[in-house]
Amino acid sequence: MSETSSPAPTACILVIGDEILSGRTQDTNIKYMATRLGQLGIKLREARVVPDQPEAIVAAVNFCRVLYTYVFTTGGIGPTHDDITTACIAKAFGRKVIRHPDAEKKLRAFYKDSFSRGGGDVNEARLKMAETPDGDSVTLIENLVTSAPGYRIENVFVMAGVPSIAQAMFEAAVPLLRKGDPVFSGSVDGEVREGDIAADLTALQEKYAGVSLGSYPSVRDNRLYTSIVARATDKTLIALALAEVADMMRKFGADPTVTAP
Amino acid sequence: MSETSSPAPTACILVIGDEILSGRTQDTNIKYMATRLGQLGIKLREARVVPDQPEAIVAAVNFCRVLYTYVFTTGGIGPTHDDITTACIAKAFGRKVIRHPDAEKKLRAFYKDSFSRGGGDVNEARLKMAETPDGDSVTLIENLVTSAPGYRIENVFVMAGVPSIAQAMFEAAVPLLRKGDPVFSGSVDGEVREGDIAADLTALQEKYAGVSLGSYPSVRDNRLYTSIVARATDKTLIALALAEVADMMRKFGADPTVTAP
Repeated sequence: MSETSSPAPTACILVIGDEILSGRTQDTNIKYMATRLGQLGIKLREARVVPDQPEAIVAAVNFCRVLYTYVFTTGGIGPTHDDITTACIAKAFGRKVIRHPDAEKKLRAFYKDSFSRGGGDVNEARLKMAETPDGDSVTLIENLVTSAPGYRIENVFVMAGVPSIAQAMFEAAVPLLRKGDPVFSGSVDGEVREGDIAADLTALQEKYAGVSLGSYPSVRDNRLYTSIVARATDKTLIALALAEVADMMRKFGADPTVTAP
Repeated sequence: MSETSSPAPTACILVIGDEILSGRTQDTNIKYMATRLGQLGIKLREARVVPDQPEAIVAAVNFCRVLYTYVFTTGGIGPTHDDITTACIAKAFGRKVIRHPDAEKKLRAFYKDSFSRGGGDVNEARLKMAETPDGDSVTLIENLVTSAPGYRIENVFVMAGVPSIAQAMFEAAVPLLRKGDPVFSGSVDGEVREGDIAADLTALQEKYAGVSLGSYPSVRDNRLYTSIVARATDKTLIALALAEVADMMRKFGADPTVTAP
């Protein structure tokens, strides 16, 4: 399907945070980045939530950075004792932690202004947010929200956990990414049961091998519906597949709704 | 902190689903199970989202079932072609897929009733939902919602992806789990900046080594707040730590709100 010369880039998201694993916080960064990566033609192959424990973070970073084109981490780059991401990233890469001169400049400038508005001053805790692993391959990722930057080290992008900041950092990182053919999706939604249409759907999946057809049941007003989602890099192929899925649903008595890619 | 004789059981959640990795669906099963596992004293060490690809699923299952006391999978046990979880679980355990006699009975009974209400009949696709890996160590997990059961195989619990069904299956599995000391949490929320309180918070974390203190910034009405969450198996210790955190926040001019464990 792809007409680019090299295979599509792949990605993994590492969510670093006890707050997700304790159930306190609902993660939303995965969904945001998953959607964006699809638009950018970067295949998200995995997302992992790991605890605030150095061994777990180091192991996950080193496993994933070898396996995928890009790794995006969220969380753990703030000023408090439980923010250990940078120390772990440095360890994963076998590097020292340094205070990055440009990051320090950004923070000092921000808090100078901030202080005049009644904010805090640049103390040691805040300067921790200027830390990155040592080495040439570190590029800062701008944070227009609170100035403390994220950074790229080789193929790993280290970003904040607060969703508004994580999203802004992701968008700031987009120009640094190699893109693939964007993946489009469309869907057909109808009042049919998965179990009734399964055999016909299998036949359609075989016919449209270049389209990935996913089947998702739901219950609304005590009635059973199924959404068939078609994903591919070719919109025409999606449209053709969806038209046949809709016809098939009509055969089962449904009046399906088609959402074009 | 624990007074039980063996170490607390651990767990990993494997979310199997392209719909999460494409950004189409917001996962909520992790948060639900994370909360419940904490209450049951089972330490959730990791959550992974893997795609609907056999190699990825088999590798993740085999990695995690060795590493953790329990693995909970969600998704991919329906009747359609994209539901490949059972085939992958069987492969991971080196077993054949069989049609489980009790599961088949449940499905036939359900669809007999269902058919009289105008539902579908038991076809080959639906009987796929009666499949499990072969062997003695397979126990069905009841599904009161749509009858197609989940199952336990050794330390792996295979459950549906639809949240209402996943939750019901998880609760049906709870009696099968070894419990630990439940983890309680409380919090202090105040209008302080993380960077201002970081040094004092580090000192409190050192003083209360048996309590895990997490710091989570947020922005509300353009004002910066920080929530300090204390987690431990000992409520008294949490209360003591929270009282000191609240005092500390007051030192920084905040009027904090304490949520008791």
